Amino acid sequence: MIDYLKDGPEIYRRSFATIRAEADLSHLPAELEKVAVRMIHACGMTDLVADLAWSPDAGKAARTALRAGAPILCDAAMVASGITRRRLPASNEVICTLTDPRVPELAAHLGTTRSAAALELWRDRLEGSLVAIGNAPTALFRLLEMIEEGAGRPAAVLGLPVGFVGAAESKRALAEHPSGLAHIVVHGRRGGSAMAVAAVNALATEQE
Amino acid sequence: MIDYLKDGPEIYRRSFATIRAEADLSHLPAELEKVAVRMIHACGMTDLVADLAWSPDAGKAARTALRAGAPILCDAAMVASGITRRRLPASNEVICTLTDPRVPELAAHLGTTRSAAALELWRDRLEGSLVAIGNAPTALFRLLEMIEEGAGRPAAVLGLPVGFVGAAESKRALAEHPSGLAHIVVHGRRGGSAMAVAAVNALATEQE
Repeated sequence: MIDYLKDGPEIYRRSFATIRAEADLSHLPAELEKVAVRMIHACGMTDLVADLAWSPDAGKAARTALRAGAPILCDAAMVASGITRRRLPASNEVICTLTDPRVPELAAHLGTTRSAAALELWRDRLEGSLVAIGNAPTALFRLLEMIEEGAGRPAAVLGLPVGFVGAAESKRALAEHPSGLAHIVVHGRRGGSAMAVAAVNALATEQE
Repeated sequence: MIDYLKDGPEIYRRSFATIRAEADLSHLPAELEKVAVRMIHACGMTDLVADLAWSPDAGKAARTALRAGAPILCDAAMVASGITRRRLPASNEVICTLTDPRVPELAAHLGTTRSAAALELWRDRLEGSLVAIGNAPTALFRLLEMIEEGAGRPAAVLGLPVGFVGAAESKRALAEHPSGLAHIVVHGRRGGSAMAVAAVNALATEQE
């Protein structure tokens, strides 16, 4: 028989303790410490913190929005699927429009990816929302374009697309965007739905 | 206006080309090359391949099972959510029992995590299945215990739990298990639902 730890809360405690022992979190603002710990927990890499960047207002803006009932707009079904509903402070709506039947035609019409086209269906929910992008660089690029064109302004943007084409560039564009959107990003190629979920779940409640 | 690539298929092509240019895939068996490329694509890290391990029969066993209609048993809702249904060769069932209302009581009764307890509800589907574990080390440990106790034998196991407590240990236990289960693992702390999804999606069809 294999001997292993079966106590869920104790597994979380030891995981978070290992992360805090190994990762240098000293430069993080206090309100993002638990967010960083959970993002590291989701990917198993304590060096993630080196690529983590944020605007000074990001933690407060996201938490305030969630408590006020802001919807969470997700670029991928996996992101929407992973958000722990019972952690949300105001039974916040979790929205992913990627699988909406209108999206393929929208994408063809707009000459872009389905991930980017799906944001057209966010328009009336953008203002004051929490945006969680954990997959597609084109979704993050499109969000910035929509803001430039005058679309509603999210309260905060979790910019965590992953990959080899546009991921690093779209996150840099968010971090340097003249609109000054509140944001958390992981610079470079790393990112993903699990990191986006971890950030949302950490911002939703202080409870670890 | 921001200039970025909006052509989905071209984004995939360039991503996969970058991965093949940067990652050393020469030691991989031919039937796992596309699997490795997609797993790297899902996490943005070309050095993932250094931690990738497999049994010689893993690719063939998983593909044969999927073509024969095997169910895909997932430890987490995010894994189930990410599998691209239209890639599956036999409209395979994608099963995640974690949110079954019986699971909390099972976990209390068995003195284990909900992730491990959820496997009790896999018993009559295990034989010949494809198991995709992308989150919980305890689910992978429990699977090995169940095999030792005589449960049905999966055709192949994707062992990709992530994290700081039990992840590395459970994957080593799978790779060294005397039952000789066909498997693909990423050794160490890295893993996750996106990697598990990428592996399933790559095994489901040869189409990139």
